[in-house]
Amino acid sequence: MNIICLQENLKKALNIVERIIGRNLTLPILNNLLLSVENNKLKISSTNLEIGINHWIPCKIKEKGSITIPAKLINDFINNLPNEKVELKIKNKQLELKCKKFKSVLNGLSASDFPIIPKIESQPLVSIKNNLLKNSFAQVVEMASISESRPEISGVYMKFYKNTIKLAATDSFRLAEKNIEINSKELKEQSIIIPQRTVLEIIRILGEKEGQEEEIKIALSNNQILFDFNSTQVISRLIDGQYPDYQQIIPSNSQTEIVIDRVELINNIKVASLFTGKVNDIKMFIDPGKSIIEISSKNTDVGENKSKIEADIKGNEVEVIFNYRYILDGLNNIYSDKVIIGLNDNVKPVLIRPVGDLSYSYVVMPIKV
Amino acid sequence: MNIICLQENLKKALNIVERIIGRNLTLPILNNLLLSVENNKLKISSTNLEIGINHWIPCKIKEKGSITIPAKLINDFINNLPNEKVELKIKNKQLELKCKKFKSVLNGLSASDFPIIPKIESQPLVSIKNNLLKNSFAQVVEMASISESRPEISGVYMKFYKNTIKLAATDSFRLAEKNIEINSKELKEQSIIIPQRTVLEIIRILGEKEGQEEEIKIALSNNQILFDFNSTQVISRLIDGQYPDYQQIIPSNSQTEIVIDRVELINNIKVASLFTGKVNDIKMFIDPGKSIIEISSKNTDVGENKSKIEADIKGNEVEVIFNYRYILDGLNNIYSDKVIIGLNDNVKPVLIRPVGDLSYSYVVMPIKV
Repeated sequence: MNIICLQENLKKALNIVERIIGRNLTLPILNNLLLSVENNKLKISSTNLEIGINHWIPCKIKEKGSITIPAKLINDFINNLPNEKVELKIKNKQLELKCKKFKSVLNGLSASDFPIIPKIESQPLVSIKNNLLKNSFAQVVEMASISESRPEISGVYMKFYKNTIKLAATDSFRLAEKNIEINSKELKEQSIIIPQRTVLEIIRILGEKEGQEEEIKIALSNNQILFDFNSTQVISRLIDGQYPDYQQIIPSNSQTEIVIDRVELINNIKVASLFTGKVNDIKMFIDPGKSIIEISSKNTDVGENKSKIEADIKGNEVEVIFNYRYILDGLNNIYSDKVIIGLNDNVKPVLIRPVGDLSYSYVVMPIKV
Repeated sequence: MNIICLQENLKKALNIVERIIGRNLTLPILNNLLLSVENNKLKISSTNLEIGINHWIPCKIKEKGSITIPAKLINDFINNLPNEKVELKIKNKQLELKCKKFKSVLNGLSASDFPIIPKIESQPLVSIKNNLLKNSFAQVVEMASISESRPEISGVYMKFYKNTIKLAATDSFRLAEKNIEINSKELKEQSIIIPQRTVLEIIRILGEKEGQEEEIKIALSNNQILFDFNSTQVISRLIDGQYPDYQQIIPSNSQTEIVIDRVELINNIKVASLFTGKVNDIKMFIDPGKSIIEISSKNTDVGENKSKIEADIKGNEVEVIFNYRYILDGLNNIYSDKVIIGLNDNVKPVLIRPVGDLSYSYVVMPIKV
């Protein structure tokens, strides 16, 4: 390899591919990035054996070749160089770098030992705008279960229909569902489960590219998923298993319906959270007569709190207990000023939705007393 | 106690006093803040037995009284309230708080068990502008030794002269000295050693009050120091001991003198730092003939680096080895575009100063080979 590229492009590329790399003591090559020349570009790849990332940047090629270099080292190195041309040259299994008045030699490992990142050659199923995909993933990803005992709910469920993609995630205490409208008449109905880590990486990479509008193409093959967008490919394994039939849990009607200011509700719950017990319990008393929700909590060691919020309330009076964290997670993933909360009694699932946006549903189970 | 004050004032006050509080399991009252009424104001106090902070805020007083409340709890609580009037009332050893539609009861501990924060009644020695004091402390504080074995250098040395205050800190590998000009004809020559933690707290509190210009009054009494400024008092114990006679270490002349761009030097040292060995060693070769400094480093596991910077150099050629961290600490505490570096040989102390500012000196010992 003997190529020249710009420091700025290298820096951006390294930032995109480097983050999935941990510290692997048993397989040191996983700490490295693979640098190779492909399609007249420099291709930089990383993998943690579950997720692989490829990123291509323009360069001037004098000689092809490939090598792997410790990710942290080359990232720190390139970050501190001036924004000038960088010459990269392989010499005796080392990478020689020159930039203005800097000259360095980085020890590498052979490219042939680098794990193969699967290639997905199949046609993309669908393409989605980057911001829509990022925001939709962000609204559900943290509800996925962190426990390993039920791997099928440890990821984000993605179901493709002709005109819609449904995303869902749950840890059995609460559930989020997001519908993305698409226009793809040939799409075959099918569903997959994407590991939470993969979805978090996609959100991160799309966040770093913010500003540019682009289309993300999604393709599937052999239990692998490909997210393909401008110069970057993320390839991930999928989770095997049957996702629970969660649709039956989302309540279709409600005895009590509340319309309430989202930020005010968040603030009152945060205050109440300071006085909760071991199960993070806060009590909500919904009073349609006074058009008021009263939130209260008590901890004998700490003290107690009571607060009131005005709200539009239709239907029955009800008193219900929640884990405050689960309510906050839902409210924090809604972007409207007001939310609609639908309840039936103090044990049945509760539905929270943004006012004026039917694409998002958040369901939370009350704490039974 | 039965008083009313504004949420905004309470929030600012708690933020100032709360940070010195750690988690004390043996003496739980140290996790609390003391709330009392003094001079028609609400006084909030914290102590970690080394440093004490008092802060006063205006309030409407219906009834005097005092109580202690867990710092984290009241801070989190007040932070989440709306910016409205807050009513604080002591009832059965608990603090009752009301704000708009919030009503809470916080469990407290008796004010009589709270450690006494020493009072310093003596006249202030001197007063210094807040920004000048903050920036001067910041330029030396991190050079203090973190080792407990020599307590006298674990703090910041402060020596008062008629027209100057000298601040110094060292860990015996490097030393920083800052001179503050003052105008106080009656000041008696004397010196003290302030714990590093106290200086860090002063920097933090002054940073939070940035924008307002004010005078910080400094008073001494019984091995305690008082920093007194607009509504806040910080009282700290001083360190006993004889500060080393560091003046003799600061070189008074130099065989080789370099004037060099500060940011460029920092960047080149950062790149070199990626290839250092166990002692963080980088080599600097100063070449007056070519007007160039060559920085190099090598680590057999990682690789090697060489870079060149143009500089104005007078005097002899010299090759010297540094711990890169010590050089960076000095360069990062200088605010001029260019720095002057004075050397004599490869073992004698090296002096780094801002161009055009004689008030700051940074001395670093080379690594002997």
